[in-house]
Amino acid sequence: MADETVTAGLLVIGDEILSGRTKDVNIAATAEFCTDLGIELREVRVVPDVTDEIVGALDALRHKFTYVFTTGGIGPTHDDITADAVAKAFGVALPINPEARAMLETRWKSAGTEVTAARLRMARIPEGADLIVNSVSAAPGFRIGNVHVMAGVPIIMKAMLEAIAPTLRTGRKVHSITVKAGVGEGAVGDALGEIQSRYPEVRLGSYPQMGGDRPTTELVLRATDEALLAEAAREVRAMVAAAHERAGLPAPDAEVY
Amino acid sequence: MADETVTAGLLVIGDEILSGRTKDVNIAATAEFCTDLGIELREVRVVPDVTDEIVGALDALRHKFTYVFTTGGIGPTHDDITADAVAKAFGVALPINPEARAMLETRWKSAGTEVTAARLRMARIPEGADLIVNSVSAAPGFRIGNVHVMAGVPIIMKAMLEAIAPTLRTGRKVHSITVKAGVGEGAVGDALGEIQSRYPEVRLGSYPQMGGDRPTTELVLRATDEALLAEAAREVRAMVAAAHERAGLPAPDAEVY
Repeated sequence: MADETVTAGLLVIGDEILSGRTKDVNIAATAEFCTDLGIELREVRVVPDVTDEIVGALDALRHKFTYVFTTGGIGPTHDDITADAVAKAFGVALPINPEARAMLETRWKSAGTEVTAARLRMARIPEGADLIVNSVSAAPGFRIGNVHVMAGVPIIMKAMLEAIAPTLRTGRKVHSITVKAGVGEGAVGDALGEIQSRYPEVRLGSYPQMGGDRPTTELVLRATDEALLAEAAREVRAMVAAAHERAGLPAPDAEVY
Repeated sequence: MADETVTAGLLVIGDEILSGRTKDVNIAATAEFCTDLGIELREVRVVPDVTDEIVGALDALRHKFTYVFTTGGIGPTHDDITADAVAKAFGVALPINPEARAMLETRWKSAGTEVTAARLRMARIPEGADLIVNSVSAAPGFRIGNVHVMAGVPIIMKAMLEAIAPTLRTGRKVHSITVKAGVGEGAVGDALGEIQSRYPEVRLGSYPQMGGDRPTTELVLRATDEALLAEAAREVRAMVAAAHERAGLPAPDAEVY
């Protein structure tokens, strides 16, 4: 298992992200979560609270990747339609789940909260799904097939990711090395492309850093093979040292660059 | 024109977003930009620096929405392949554009920067495209058909959005009113759904606010018709006042809630 590529797609559900009212932070949190586990997050989609849009995106992603994570739309109000859309995509019913209801009622009882039709919406779970525990506010997420349905509230989303982590197959861990260059992207682009062509299994990214006195660049190397990564990084460091020399800059500090 | 719905899709291109290395801020900036102009941002996709993935997402979005905005992948390095992918999607050549080259060379001359093959990549523009001026770092974006190709660096992306704003058809301006409720979502969900069913043209969103002493909720109403919006907001305010009373809370402050 450990040398197999495990992939994921993320589906962010909610009008509030698309209107700009809420700034999404779940994309970055999920990306870091996946990278830490050696899962390759390959695609993200953000769709509105519209059933057909959710179903369409879900079907596209779930057939393409090992896992799909969704965030948003599982609360108690009429615009929380993620469970409905997931049940529709899988062609299953959406009954009140006794276990989910019990989790919620325990919490409500201790808080003196009345059971209402709106609140009970949160206990509707597609048939055949397993619950994902919500340690923050009780209302559970769920897993059906390769799809993990989680909350949009960032702290709950993070807690749910932690809850599912032990259940996920993890892929080959991707290692990364960052090499900082005291010159702009244009000064290293040709040489970097040449190195990339010789190391197809190392992913070479180039990221301009703006806002300082002069342009600098961060070169990020990523690979699953640590020896190959180290070898490519040596070449990139030598290339950057040469670019510094051409630009009349001091040699890059081996520790920093 | 002004009473027509104008829609948009956003395509964010870059491995660095999917790996979690870079936290995207262009989604929120584009969402706010669209909302301000009365353009409905309907979908966002984030894809890696892989030509076929970019072409696939671009084709899906450009046939679905009035406009597509892309961000990322137009710099001078080998992993900047957005222009190549867009040219492929539209089936056109990708020559050095004389106007783009002149813009870049003027900037390079004043900075004493050498012209290299890598830097000249930034002057490659799909045939038939118009340039989008880059007031920050000279390298232009471009528009071809309904697709606007812009930089990933947030300050440049924002400058390019400002540059294209006057060229875009703008839709009906969407107005919004926020009503704050001093109770959790579950306490207003049923009544909110009932109001939503009577105001299909008003979009009612419910957003739980966490982290305070007790759960509160922001109810956001959005509509293009200001009179209808005001009428629905009056109903929501009355509903919230009733929920406060039931919960033994003071009446919501008319100014704050």
